[in-house]
Amino acid sequence: MDKDATLLGRLEAIVGRQQVLTSDADTAPHLIDWRRYFQGRALAVVRPGTTAEVAAVVRACRDAGTPIVAQGGNTGHCGGSVPDASGTAIVLALTRLNRVRAIDVANATLTVEAGMTLAAVQEAAAGSGMYFPLSLAAEGSATIGGNIATNAGGTAVLRFGNARELVLGLEVVLADGQVWNGLRSLRKDNTGYDLKQLFIGAEGTLGIITAAVLKLFAPPRTQATAFAALPDPAAAVALLSRLKRALGDRLTGFELMAALPVALSRKAMPALPDPLPGHPWYALVQADDTAPDAPLPTVVEAALAAAIEAGEARDVAIAQSGEQAKALWTLRENIADAQRQEGPNIKHDISLPVSHIPAFIAEAETALRAAFPGVRFVTFGHLGDGNLHYNLSAPEGTPPKDFMTGTAAANRIVHDLVAAHGGSISAEHGIGQAKRDELLRYKDPLEIALMKSIKATLDPAGILNPGKILHRT
Amino acid sequence: MDKDATLLGRLEAIVGRQQVLTSDADTAPHLIDWRRYFQGRALAVVRPGTTAEVAAVVRACRDAGTPIVAQGGNTGHCGGSVPDASGTAIVLALTRLNRVRAIDVANATLTVEAGMTLAAVQEAAAGSGMYFPLSLAAEGSATIGGNIATNAGGTAVLRFGNARELVLGLEVVLADGQVWNGLRSLRKDNTGYDLKQLFIGAEGTLGIITAAVLKLFAPPRTQATAFAALPDPAAAVALLSRLKRALGDRLTGFELMAALPVALSRKAMPALPDPLPGHPWYALVQADDTAPDAPLPTVVEAALAAAIEAGEARDVAIAQSGEQAKALWTLRENIADAQRQEGPNIKHDISLPVSHIPAFIAEAETALRAAFPGVRFVTFGHLGDGNLHYNLSAPEGTPPKDFMTGTAAANRIVHDLVAAHGGSISAEHGIGQAKRDELLRYKDPLEIALMKSIKATLDPAGILNPGKILHRT
Repeated sequence: MDKDATLLGRLEAIVGRQQVLTSDADTAPHLIDWRRYFQGRALAVVRPGTTAEVAAVVRACRDAGTPIVAQGGNTGHCGGSVPDASGTAIVLALTRLNRVRAIDVANATLTVEAGMTLAAVQEAAAGSGMYFPLSLAAEGSATIGGNIATNAGGTAVLRFGNARELVLGLEVVLADGQVWNGLRSLRKDNTGYDLKQLFIGAEGTLGIITAAVLKLFAPPRTQATAFAALPDPAAAVALLSRLKRALGDRLTGFELMAALPVALSRKAMPALPDPLPGHPWYALVQADDTAPDAPLPTVVEAALAAAIEAGEARDVAIAQSGEQAKALWTLRENIADAQRQEGPNIKHDISLPVSHIPAFIAEAETALRAAFPGVRFVTFGHLGDGNLHYNLSAPEGTPPKDFMTGTAAANRIVHDLVAAHGGSISAEHGIGQAKRDELLRYKDPLEIALMKSIKATLDPAGILNPGKILHRT
Repeated sequence: MDKDATLLGRLEAIVGRQQVLTSDADTAPHLIDWRRYFQGRALAVVRPGTTAEVAAVVRACRDAGTPIVAQGGNTGHCGGSVPDASGTAIVLALTRLNRVRAIDVANATLTVEAGMTLAAVQEAAAGSGMYFPLSLAAEGSATIGGNIATNAGGTAVLRFGNARELVLGLEVVLADGQVWNGLRSLRKDNTGYDLKQLFIGAEGTLGIITAAVLKLFAPPRTQATAFAALPDPAAAVALLSRLKRALGDRLTGFELMAALPVALSRKAMPALPDPLPGHPWYALVQADDTAPDAPLPTVVEAALAAAIEAGEARDVAIAQSGEQAKALWTLRENIADAQRQEGPNIKHDISLPVSHIPAFIAEAETALRAAFPGVRFVTFGHLGDGNLHYNLSAPEGTPPKDFMTGTAAANRIVHDLVAAHGGSISAEHGIGQAKRDELLRYKDPLEIALMKSIKATLDPAGILNPGKILHRT
């Protein structure tokens, strides 16, 4: 019996025959990423149902020298959760680990297994009258384990931080198959190195997250949503500072949009509102309060009136109902789909110091217009976090496929400017396979060397998601 | 010339002769910890003025195989910042690295050198109309580098988190003398392993922090302070949940105090108020809002009135002026000094899931009364963070020195119960030298092994603060 057959037999003995998938039909959805950029192959897709089974699978793979690609909802944007084309790896699908292990309302914590979808985690919190704030477009499929392994961002970072800040404890299967139980539910714990930080955002390359203790919060019960027309990005930065002072932590969202993405969103979905036509830039402002009767709309209205006085905003519209608020958010959230309907486009998930965003936008537009005459800028993003989805569409009349040949050149212009402004070439989507080369270009070699030494320490045989973040060595 | 003399000459050439202290008078304050429990010796105290000098000092020590004990304000509670008694190490005093490198109000970030005092950092933020929330008793002497290296907690953790959550970027001198520039000022950056997390809370054992980028916030401009009399700790937990719902993030402090520590504080400082005499437990509640005219006192008052209705509080007093608020906080902050005036006492810096605190207090009192008849419980702490300063004073009439002989036995009772409740034996003070043995007792051996492997990776020669957190190997 060859080595692979021996391993498959051992895996079937661990998880049961029906949880080791090998047919093309069964494995196909696990072998290509959500954006359909990265097609891989695998020896099998293995679906353990418990942490003990995950550990046994890892030990079997360690013994066989077989790489393991941990996978949750497989909704990542950088190809981190699919195997390479060699067919030598197994995919370890974690979606059967989907139980709530504990909820502690008085401690405001929720202990969940890694394979629960983010939506199910949110529902478990809500079911106990609490609130888990992590939220992103793929939440119906994305798993909490994947969210943590990629340090997911989403729409509530301005107030609640990234996934990293929402995790109090982890359970992790290590590369040698040992289980580290770090499921602590403490706000303060200074007993040595904070090991969980190593696994958060490591994209499954240092260990396999099987469960987590999450922070919960009191749910928002009063909300205010506003739309503001702005003269330019500098005004948006000033307005953001003003609203932070007026609202403190009740400011939970501040989304910047240029006129073009708003127009594209409405073109794709004509029923959407057009509250303030004719301006070059817009901001969508969200405020939340945990008190049921807070005077939040009044505070938002007063702050925006003062912003108009100060020239930071040209006009504002405040949602008068939950439906109006929802329509404004749909206008924002529909942008990515609307742009996709226009054809392929060149995307960048970048972050910058908030103060540098106006200069970056000006410099990038000048450089890109010179390189790609007529290029259209679909600029939008979470300004409150300094995170822009800085996307480029083909000039009117240019076939999008022709435009896409300029991707590498456009990336170079954008990422060089990001680096010059002290920014990041991957704000929230991670590195995966997609940005390994860009990482080597922009990261200090000393930092790459430190990352490699950490990888070698925690996964000396290199079996955990090899070739992701860092190239294989 | 012997090895030590050669090293001292090299150090003098790097930092200048007057910055290499060797006389007893000059070095003495650097060789004993703030609580005067740990007296060490050193080859010299070296005071570099720049990061480049720190790096050169580290290279010289690496070449000589000489251990380096990094030291900020030397205010730690666990002996982490003083050398051992061998006299073989140098103390690297960082207080001359005390410059503000940059402040960016629009990005809400402040870049400072490690040797600035926490108070100076707070002032630098305030000078630009911003707010840095980390605050603790020793802030006039403690340095920001030490705060980060020990992941300091303090009085604002409930809302703002520990020091770890306030750091966006670090500059670190590594064990081989290379300088890692991780001074990023981004809210989102998913470009590989988050290396700064390794150095935060590592007590100078993995690298030497020389500068940091800190998060700033809009300053609080409306405040409300209240004092509540409570029937028992379970009522305190219920009141905390109620206030979180009413106030959200505007609840910035929730301090629990038993009647005895309040009485001791007033005995030591009789001018302090006694707002609600005759109850067994008290809570000090602090709320802050960034808006200048927020209806905060009204919201606090309504929530506390509802708490009385629900039986969670027996009586409440709301501060009617800034002076009254300050007096209530002094009542709380004076407890540690007041207890010290009564004689030595047995201290514990523990954390628990908030929901477990009532049961822990009941069980610990029963066990300790059995072991130490008449023992007095000076129980207080940051209930909002699950952090108790669980201190024990001698029975009336017992000389405190006799009582202190029971320290190890009392620690065993308290820490065993903490472990049984999923708590931490060091909530905010770290491990240093003081709790190395306790760490070995309570930490999973797998976690100790992981910590050792990280230490060996980043400091293979073992020259960075050896014997702190982990015993030398």
